[in-house]
Amino acid sequence: MLSKAIIKLVRSLDQKKIRVEKKLFVTEGNKIVSEIINNQLPITYLVATKEWIVKQTKLPKTEIIKVTKSELKQISFQKTPQQVLAVCNIVNKELHFSDLKNELILALDNVQNPGNVGTIIRIADWFGIKNIVASLSTADIYNPKVIQASMGAFVRVMVHYVLLEKFLVKMKSENNLPIYGTTLQGKNIYNQKLSSRGIIVMGSEGNGISENIMKILTKQLYIPPFIAGAPPNESLNVAIATAIVCSEFRRQQNL
Amino acid sequence: MLSKAIIKLVRSLDQKKIRVEKKLFVTEGNKIVSEIINNQLPITYLVATKEWIVKQTKLPKTEIIKVTKSELKQISFQKTPQQVLAVCNIVNKELHFSDLKNELILALDNVQNPGNVGTIIRIADWFGIKNIVASLSTADIYNPKVIQASMGAFVRVMVHYVLLEKFLVKMKSENNLPIYGTTLQGKNIYNQKLSSRGIIVMGSEGNGISENIMKILTKQLYIPPFIAGAPPNESLNVAIATAIVCSEFRRQQNL
Repeated sequence: MLSKAIIKLVRSLDQKKIRVEKKLFVTEGNKIVSEIINNQLPITYLVATKEWIVKQTKLPKTEIIKVTKSELKQISFQKTPQQVLAVCNIVNKELHFSDLKNELILALDNVQNPGNVGTIIRIADWFGIKNIVASLSTADIYNPKVIQASMGAFVRVMVHYVLLEKFLVKMKSENNLPIYGTTLQGKNIYNQKLSSRGIIVMGSEGNGISENIMKILTKQLYIPPFIAGAPPNESLNVAIATAIVCSEFRRQQNL
Repeated sequence: MLSKAIIKLVRSLDQKKIRVEKKLFVTEGNKIVSEIINNQLPITYLVATKEWIVKQTKLPKTEIIKVTKSELKQISFQKTPQQVLAVCNIVNKELHFSDLKNELILALDNVQNPGNVGTIIRIADWFGIKNIVASLSTADIYNPKVIQASMGAFVRVMVHYVLLEKFLVKMKSENNLPIYGTTLQGKNIYNQKLSSRGIIVMGSEGNGISENIMKILTKQLYIPPFIAGAPPNESLNVAIATAIVCSEFRRQQNL
């Protein structure tokens, strides 16, 4: 049965302040919770229906709170909750700069929509990008909406929150890493030789890459619209643009 | 001022049945409503704040209901409504099969999430795809969530709801159009010669392309994950996959 304390705790984890204070976050749904169990990430409470519990071949060594579907609905952040919700521990991972020298890395400059950040984590996972750096103003990876949109990919992809400008300057000068960015003035991405190492900066939904970061870019890229005449008064969603850019980097790398 | 009748009308347009009956749909936000006005699409009511009205250089010849921000919030489908909402007329457009012979067309096979359908319309617009055909089970283009996610691109991209299997068979046999589909068994998309005309089928979020449609495909494509060893137990969101596929078709066409 659900205690009032658990209800209150889960609901409060919608707020970043509380997540940071308690070092906890919420994940939901059969697929994502399975990923967490299989990857042996620490779980504080597992809230599950009887139907979910009986289906498991291996249950984690943690407190399991058996609930009815309607009890689960009471605490879920989802409109149509599935059968399980896990309160997980935030494990802080250190960023090792030397690990990043020979990789492709995504940098998020003030990407604020949690759904976009989660989707970008999922894209990174597909394209074998293991590290994402994000400005402090980017949506928090432990926001329930980010976790859900990532569909469990956050288990494999690290997101590091950094002072982005400082980080990029350091990576550029110390490791001679190319810093790519998609901008409206950039060169047609399909005609550019893209490196298998470097940082790809994606800008915010409303304003693109911020001015101070623009100055650090070594190559500006552009995804050309396919229309006759002038480009439309349009843009691509940042997650969609990220997918196209990652696809093109990886396509060239496999040639 | 907002009458009770208008409040009731707008709210009811969340339902497809009512939209079909009244031939009306709702759009919101400064950008999307501007697109509608600029494209001279028929508007039945414009519900706007004073701030929005005074900024317009040209107002459409339609009934304008001046409201306060809190009144707008009362009828908006958005969490944080902007300054304007328009109740627009559904204009049925006929599908001319002969127009589709030399184009690239997207076909949606049971794509159910309205956000995905709207995002796909926006992607189609960017990549110059003018026509989308969709199975009858695909989310309705006039669903407020589809309209919002499309960011106004629905003004330029036609979405035709058809008996998809019958449509594809007809297009394949009569026009000799290639029918592409992304599947798990498909060939690496980056190594395939892609045509500048044809139909690209995208499957549903949960189940991919349905069995009866699979049989009609002339070429199966696959977006390879970039990881060492076996592919992960993962997939790409259907809108993300659509973006990558469209990008690769258009890249090859521009070579």
